[in-house]
Amino acid sequence: MKPFMLASREYKPKDTIIEINSSAKKVFLGEGYCTLIAGPCAVEGAEEYLDLARILAGLGVHILRAGVFKPRTSPYTFKGLGREGMEIVDQARLITGLPVITEILDVRDLEQLYDRVDILQVGSRNMQNFALLEELGQIKRPVMLKRGLSATIEEWLLAAEYILNGGNDQIILCERGIRTFEPYTRNTVDIGAVALLKQLSHLPIIVDPSHATGRWKMVAPVARAAIAAGADGIMVEVHQDPDKALSDGKQSLTPENFAGLRDQIIKLAELDKKII
Amino acid sequence: MKPFMLASREYKPKDTIIEINSSAKKVFLGEGYCTLIAGPCAVEGAEEYLDLARILAGLGVHILRAGVFKPRTSPYTFKGLGREGMEIVDQARLITGLPVITEILDVRDLEQLYDRVDILQVGSRNMQNFALLEELGQIKRPVMLKRGLSATIEEWLLAAEYILNGGNDQIILCERGIRTFEPYTRNTVDIGAVALLKQLSHLPIIVDPSHATGRWKMVAPVARAAIAAGADGIMVEVHQDPDKALSDGKQSLTPENFAGLRDQIIKLAELDKKII
Amino acid sequence: MKPFMLASREYKPKDTIIEINSSAKKVFLGEGYCTLIAGPCAVEGAEEYLDLARILAGLGVHILRAGVFKPRTSPYTFKGLGREGMEIVDQARLITGLPVITEILDVRDLEQLYDRVDILQVGSRNMQNFALLEELGQIKRPVMLKRGLSATIEEWLLAAEYILNGGNDQIILCERGIRTFEPYTRNTVDIGAVALLKQLSHLPIIVDPSHATGRWKMVAPVARAAIAAGADGIMVEVHQDPDKALSDGKQSLTPENFAGLRDQIIKLAELDKKII
Amino acid sequence: MKPFMLASREYKPKDTIIEINSSAKKVFLGEGYCTLIAGPCAVEGAEEYLDLARILAGLGVHILRAGVFKPRTSPYTFKGLGREGMEIVDQARLITGLPVITEILDVRDLEQLYDRVDILQVGSRNMQNFALLEELGQIKRPVMLKRGLSATIEEWLLAAEYILNGGNDQIILCERGIRTFEPYTRNTVDIGAVALLKQLSHLPIIVDPSHATGRWKMVAPVARAAIAAGADGIMVEVHQDPDKALSDGKQSLTPENFAGLRDQIIKLAELDKKII
Repeated sequence: MKPFMLASREYKPKDTIIEINSSAKKVFLGEGYCTLIAGPCAVEGAEEYLDLARILAGLGVHILRAGVFKPRTSPYTFKGLGREGMEIVDQARLITGLPVITEILDVRDLEQLYDRVDILQVGSRNMQNFALLEELGQIKRPVMLKRGLSATIEEWLLAAEYILNGGNDQIILCERGIRTFEPYTRNTVDIGAVALLKQLSHLPIIVDPSHATGRWKMVAPVARAAIAAGADGIMVEVHQDPDKALSDGKQSLTPENFAGLRDQIIKLAELDKKII
Repeated sequence: MKPFMLASREYKPKDTIIEINSSAKKVFLGEGYCTLIAGPCAVEGAEEYLDLARILAGLGVHILRAGVFKPRTSPYTFKGLGREGMEIVDQARLITGLPVITEILDVRDLEQLYDRVDILQVGSRNMQNFALLEELGQIKRPVMLKRGLSATIEEWLLAAEYILNGGNDQIILCERGIRTFEPYTRNTVDIGAVALLKQLSHLPIIVDPSHATGRWKMVAPVARAAIAAGADGIMVEVHQDPDKALSDGKQSLTPENFAGLRDQIIKLAELDKKII
Repeated sequence: MKPFMLASREYKPKDTIIEINSSAKKVFLGEGYCTLIAGPCAVEGAEEYLDLARILAGLGVHILRAGVFKPRTSPYTFKGLGREGMEIVDQARLITGLPVITEILDVRDLEQLYDRVDILQVGSRNMQNFALLEELGQIKRPVMLKRGLSATIEEWLLAAEYILNGGNDQIILCERGIRTFEPYTRNTVDIGAVALLKQLSHLPIIVDPSHATGRWKMVAPVARAAIAAGADGIMVEVHQDPDKALSDGKQSLTPENFAGLRDQIIKLAELDKKII
Repeated sequence: MKPFMLASREYKPKDTIIEINSSAKKVFLGEGYCTLIAGPCAVEGAEEYLDLARILAGLGVHILRAGVFKPRTSPYTFKGLGREGMEIVDQARLITGLPVITEILDVRDLEQLYDRVDILQVGSRNMQNFALLEELGQIKRPVMLKRGLSATIEEWLLAAEYILNGGNDQIILCERGIRTFEPYTRNTVDIGAVALLKQLSHLPIIVDPSHATGRWKMVAPVARAAIAAGADGIMVEVHQDPDKALSDGKQSLTPENFAGLRDQIIKLAELDKKII
């Protein structure tokens, strides 16, 4: 028997489809759909964010990245706008009608985020923050679980198992690259993980080619590869002016480049008759 | 300039010596001392734990391992006795007079642990749990910060920087092995990290050869190597009956084996004129 | 300046296209083409190999895998048919008219292989066998250079540089997975390497999804991902009866499964207007 | 059964002791001895090398490093003096009476090296150069087999098995660090490998702290750790003027620093009653 049970395909042969209906626009995520999540690494200011949100909505993005609490390796770097950033996110959600995804870092923030966020993201550094996972198991809200920096597939599914075991089965897995010895790229995308997870588990799996590569020129080819490998969507960083981004500018696409990528993804999705 | 500042030797050339005086026996940890931390992986029951605590105190152990909240990869395995385990730890601390070290998993547990624990341990999975690090920066209690599974030296020191930046400079670093491709051992001890940290930082560094190897026969040679490389102490798992341990039995020493290791460590410490 | 020069796109902005014309059928490999290389891990016997070669030729394969010298981790496992295997390969090449690719392990085998092999393969274990690379720099024959088990992109391009520096510019790079900590798969495909190499270098790049994953069910999705990421072709293991293969059966496709994969690859190639 | 047999302790419970008697001074390597190998990364010129050789002989070094064929990642860097370097090595061997160790890169060099070299070294890049291993199995000369960059313990012992299987049982294993994600150091010393190999195999094991760390300030603590973990010796790079070394200067000790290290190693060897 595999150490993970509720997350396994043996336990639930049918694919889990996440239906996000807490926002104005209903969105589906899972087998048969190709879902586009996009936005800046972090919400940096009201004007820029609302402007970008409108642009992305116009480009067919399904879910908005809305980072307000940013986990940062150094205590001295920009950590997001925090609670006041949430008010900007509220507006973007209202204006565009799109669901938003926000990372939760502290279990004590859950209450304030619960009704204002459509998907709660667990970042790679918190993949085994079991106190957080257990709380997220108690709620009725989709959770995106990013893979830990060096987590095995089994450990990742066991982290999902913590949430499933609590009663919440609305989980989206997100491959965001693993740490290797390669200095050229920020991380190494494990494209095989997408293929493997589709066999081992019923949970949806998306790929974040921005964090995974750290280089915007690699984002499009890796995003294409993700969809071709069977991923249910991609999460991409977009910024109007990447050079001025307070975090992760090097890996952000401009809206124009994102539009080009979207066109390519649409063609790949059509090959597999996926709804996009 | 290095991205870590308060943790750097440039900032503070003099070695930080941790003085633990919240328990009956005063203990020092840092350059010039060789400190022995030992105990079972987890507190499993009152009788066994108190018995072992007495044995270890008799063998010259300076600090007792007192795991009551255990982070476990799977939600279905023994996670420690939790709050009731703390009562057993209270007794062991009273009986032996030794300071105790306990891992904290949830920032909400801090209040109950604060007065009953002499060193708070941050496990490798939580090395970048910034919400927890920030809280630990606010307290006046030594913190042992284990290295993340695949953390670079810089990331590790930046995690320490979070605590230092909050105002708490009582930090002990603990090398517990990194993840590599090797299937024979649980992790790969980075002995060079000990040497490097002594140059880069003023913080004390100890090694956990039990978690780092996962095989009890490797514990003694790796513990010896740690001290020879300049580590300020070791943290070792000891269990009266390793085969019956609820967790990590394979890597636990019997008290007899631990006594043998202690004798070897004493000789190495004497070579370097360290107080043990 | 980058440490690799002749391999860089700065040095030669135009893509290198390999033209294989030493066999009956002319084959191209490089930007704008999508080349299929297939065959068993090792030539095991005349009848089976010739039969498979005919089947693969009928399925539109462009180049035949023709392993006769197999590098094996253990001295006690099947190491290929060696020189007598070459006679079977000669026949397959004659019958199908297809070019063949064979791994060279020993610099002393070069003379006998030179006129009977259309592409010489350097395996991952020999990526930094500089004596071999230098000899291959002296010949007029395409060389497929597999990435070393844990080679960085730069080291890989520098290995190519050894061959280029000798005067041979007919080099095909082959990503075959890198070693990581993941036990589920044999190796971890670095799909980002494909995207990165297309930017850094003019050399063609293909992907070997069989060795990279070690699991036949993952071969098709990873092969698709490779083409979507921009790879110029794939090299796939095919065996009539994978369960009976003397080596690497677990990662081999049946001819039927390969035919299905080919159909999918054709559609992806058409999206990018690549000749297949 | 383990996949390696001849290399296993089950097959040969008694430690293998290598007796080097092809030079003027007889040297032993294996359990019970602590053997010092030292010299520059590469022989760069007659005067400097002979001068250093005399100094090292005076400092009690047992075996001289005598690199004349240097494997270099880039084709454009200094690759050693080659055949003419061997004449300088001949002199050093004559003058000091010490045995010399030289890396062999090309199987075709074996004949010229055989009578002039006391230990043939297989570098990490060639650990799985099976053509070379098979030839070295046929000779009566000790072979030092360095661990491959990312080789598992099992693969390393299987590489030794190739040599043992040919009939040559004079093998010394050399841990030289594995590749990890850490950018501070060149490689990561796997000190646990020393402890593990002493249990799994009867072959002697030494550690190369110079290549393993890439930083001379780390060489002494790591060398100490190696001996404390049970290694049978160390191989250290020494250069009169590290800043001017044509290769690997950053990791070279001056003769003065080496003398200090030697004194520390002697004390550690005495603790274990090893002959040094």
